[in-house]
Amino acid sequence: MKLSNDTVKACKDGFETHTRYRKQLPGVIRKIVESCKDKQCFEHIGAQLIPSRQSVIEIIFRIREILFPGYFNTTEKLDSTNLYYQTGRSVDMLFEIFSEQMTLSFKHDCLRYDQPCVQCVKLGYEQALKFLESIPEIRQVLATDIRAAYEGDPAAKSYDEIVFSYPGIFAIMVYRIAHQLFQQEVPLIPRIMSEYAHSVTGIDIHPGAQIGESFFIDHGTGVVIGETSSIGKNVRIYQGVTLGALSLPKDAGDLLRGRKRHPTIEDEVIIYAGATILGGETIIGTRSVIGGNVWITESVLPDTRVILEAPRLIYK
Amino acid sequence: MKLSNDTVKACKDGFETHTRYRKQLPGVIRKIVESCKDKQCFEHIGAQLIPSRQSVIEIIFRIREILFPGYFNTTEKLDSTNLYYQTGRSVDMLFEIFSEQMTLSFKHDCLRYDQPCVQCVKLGYEQALKFLESIPEIRQVLATDIRAAYEGDPAAKSYDEIVFSYPGIFAIMVYRIAHQLFQQEVPLIPRIMSEYAHSVTGIDIHPGAQIGESFFIDHGTGVVIGETSSIGKNVRIYQGVTLGALSLPKDAGDLLRGRKRHPTIEDEVIIYAGATILGGETIIGTRSVIGGNVWITESVLPDTRVILEAPRLIYK
Amino acid sequence: MKLSNDTVKACKDGFETHTRYRKQLPGVIRKIVESCKDKQCFEHIGAQLIPSRQSVIEIIFRIREILFPGYFNTTEKLDSTNLYYQTGRSVDMLFEIFSEQMTLSFKHDCLRYDQPCVQCVKLGYEQALKFLESIPEIRQVLATDIRAAYEGDPAAKSYDEIVFSYPGIFAIMVYRIAHQLFQQEVPLIPRIMSEYAHSVTGIDIHPGAQIGESFFIDHGTGVVIGETSSIGKNVRIYQGVTLGALSLPKDAGDLLRGRKRHPTIEDEVIIYAGATILGGETIIGTRSVIGGNVWITESVLPDTRVILEAPRLIYK
Repeated sequence: MKLSNDTVKACKDGFETHTRYRKQLPGVIRKIVESCKDKQCFEHIGAQLIPSRQSVIEIIFRIREILFPGYFNTTEKLDSTNLYYQTGRSVDMLFEIFSEQMTLSFKHDCLRYDQPCVQCVKLGYEQALKFLESIPEIRQVLATDIRAAYEGDPAAKSYDEIVFSYPGIFAIMVYRIAHQLFQQEVPLIPRIMSEYAHSVTGIDIHPGAQIGESFFIDHGTGVVIGETSSIGKNVRIYQGVTLGALSLPKDAGDLLRGRKRHPTIEDEVIIYAGATILGGETIIGTRSVIGGNVWITESVLPDTRVILEAPRLIYK
Repeated sequence: MKLSNDTVKACKDGFETHTRYRKQLPGVIRKIVESCKDKQCFEHIGAQLIPSRQSVIEIIFRIREILFPGYFNTTEKLDSTNLYYQTGRSVDMLFEIFSEQMTLSFKHDCLRYDQPCVQCVKLGYEQALKFLESIPEIRQVLATDIRAAYEGDPAAKSYDEIVFSYPGIFAIMVYRIAHQLFQQEVPLIPRIMSEYAHSVTGIDIHPGAQIGESFFIDHGTGVVIGETSSIGKNVRIYQGVTLGALSLPKDAGDLLRGRKRHPTIEDEVIIYAGATILGGETIIGTRSVIGGNVWITESVLPDTRVILEAPRLIYK
Repeated sequence: MKLSNDTVKACKDGFETHTRYRKQLPGVIRKIVESCKDKQCFEHIGAQLIPSRQSVIEIIFRIREILFPGYFNTTEKLDSTNLYYQTGRSVDMLFEIFSEQMTLSFKHDCLRYDQPCVQCVKLGYEQALKFLESIPEIRQVLATDIRAAYEGDPAAKSYDEIVFSYPGIFAIMVYRIAHQLFQQEVPLIPRIMSEYAHSVTGIDIHPGAQIGESFFIDHGTGVVIGETSSIGKNVRIYQGVTLGALSLPKDAGDLLRGRKRHPTIEDEVIIYAGATILGGETIIGTRSVIGGNVWITESVLPDTRVILEAPRLIYK
């Protein structure tokens, strides 16, 4: 069979069109590569490899399997016989992956200060081990958080449902992991973790914040807890709550870096949806209740109930 | 070629460092395994396997392909000839995967009450089939939701854009699936589904809520619709709207479980961004319009327009 | 060894149960296929294949690797020697994938208007190339955005942390890509991109909005920037800010499509968390500062500071 002349022509045309456009690529590529020559834009050339965001996320999920044994590994049943072996294997693998990523983050940090890092591999092992040693404590604190969720949410059907599906628990778990790493002064990784949790839950907790046990966040979308916030025990907050800094002038970045800019929340406080509490010197006293949408920039005494004077509504 | 003594030494040092840290792992692992011995933290040992979150998410996407044929399968073109075969194949595969996950969720629920579940496999088949039978109805209701989106959003360019990319439609679709399963009293799976949609869209609709046809959520981030909310037909809501419970005392969880705690929204109501409506006895009457940021804890008569008295602004 | 009669019976029963349920599938499948016969629900039958959401997301990540060389490819180190080859390879592959998806989107658009599209393949090449040519400019604008983030956020530890983990930067990057495609009148793809970023960050920027350089969004969850918004240079906004349309009557969709419905924000403006600015004729003048939770539907002169008169709080 012979193809018709028309078919042959259409084929050729298609090929030629493709080629004609492809021939313009080298010029475009040259412009793209050179577009950064004047250093006005960001590239990461000649630098150390960076912790892989994908690996950091994988590390979160590996840690979660160890924190909540039997909940998230769905291929093998855990029982008292194999628990020890499974945990051993998980921790072993986590150590290898985590120390490697930590080494990358230390190396990257060294180069930023133009220093070579002969100790980075060792630092990676050391800090990974230090993190593993903190796991028993993290498990115990998380158990108090889960109980607080069950007590605080009438829609909770079981503890298992909370462990499985509550975004607040996921965000708090990632925060407790990231905060431990923040305290160990591991660069980059804590923030990559917290922004992953932010992305998944809409809850933005900076790894530097200090948060006591039995902490519950319900619904959670829009919650912001700033770097220097300090939160006591048995605190409960709802969606859209901000613990933030007072208004910042332009270029405030450098001036305020490292200073206490976010509020202190004492034990047993409840903060309802949409409330905003600002400023490093603001203290919300023990057992106080902050109503929905309240906007606070000054301290509140213990045992106070603060509610918005009902704004007048117009009914037409 | 012979390696220099320095190189050999560096190699050995590296190996020894690694080994030295690894030797500490067994001690750490023992502490981790034992850290839960007193049952103060959560593990899921010796229990039945649990529905896999990953499988539940896969099920959502398989159902979506059946609900909107031709929109989301991008490898094969659907036409009137193969529609029947493709749908048949998709439904068949969904039945197998879904009934398996349902069986796991029933088994898990049985064990929670310390009962054996001889019927769990059969229940899995039965409830998976029951769900499949509800698909035609879900398709029809979703079609009203998509039309409502097109009518309500001047930025919508086409119905296809809405089906493809609108987070509100995704959240409502997952809600309608999860609500059907909630009514069938399938454990765990509905809530895993709704929290997945919450994670993807920032829209948190509890599977227990009742929502009529032609429902539209625009933008949607921060929307919370509580478990016992009841919403009529042709309702439209915007980002940040909360249909919630009145303030809960500590330990309210057990007291209020199962009671009507969230509001009733009648037909044709519009609720603008950031409005909060609370309480199980609050009813928003037909055709009423609730303005942005309004905070309501009492019922509103039909045909009422409620707006915030413009708060005084200070201009400097 | 012979199986006991009971075991054999249990096996048979299991098999028969499965079969009994499976036999009901054909009836269910028929109903599902036919449930759309009256065209009351949405299907996409006999239509062109549609751009794959998964491919569009992959395209975003491929573009990001080119925009920020060395930051996101974690397997190979980039240096001045291989930068050119790596970029060349990345751009080459992007061209092929992107032009294919663009062709699909043009074909799909043609069929919507019942026109054949002989030019769609060529259009795909042409518009993919045009997009590639815009990359140097997008890189330069993004560099100003990253500097603005560092200056505006005291919690930022380094530029690298911002590039890696700031959701605001991700949302702005996707917006700048999608806006370029919106200007090239590429159908469907820009909106799929912006809804992906919305899903990941909680920040909803319509591709049609116009946004100047050095734009910073902090935290970001709940931000909504409508289709016809216009934003100047050096603007900074916080979580929960809405640039929206005034209230829309039912069925407003068709009436208002294409009209300017969203506000204009001039250079150097700061808008704090939760503020809502509505209406196509509303202009916020240069260097003005809009306080948290402020609700504005009228223009504000330059150099004005607008804050909410502190709502009265009730302390109990």
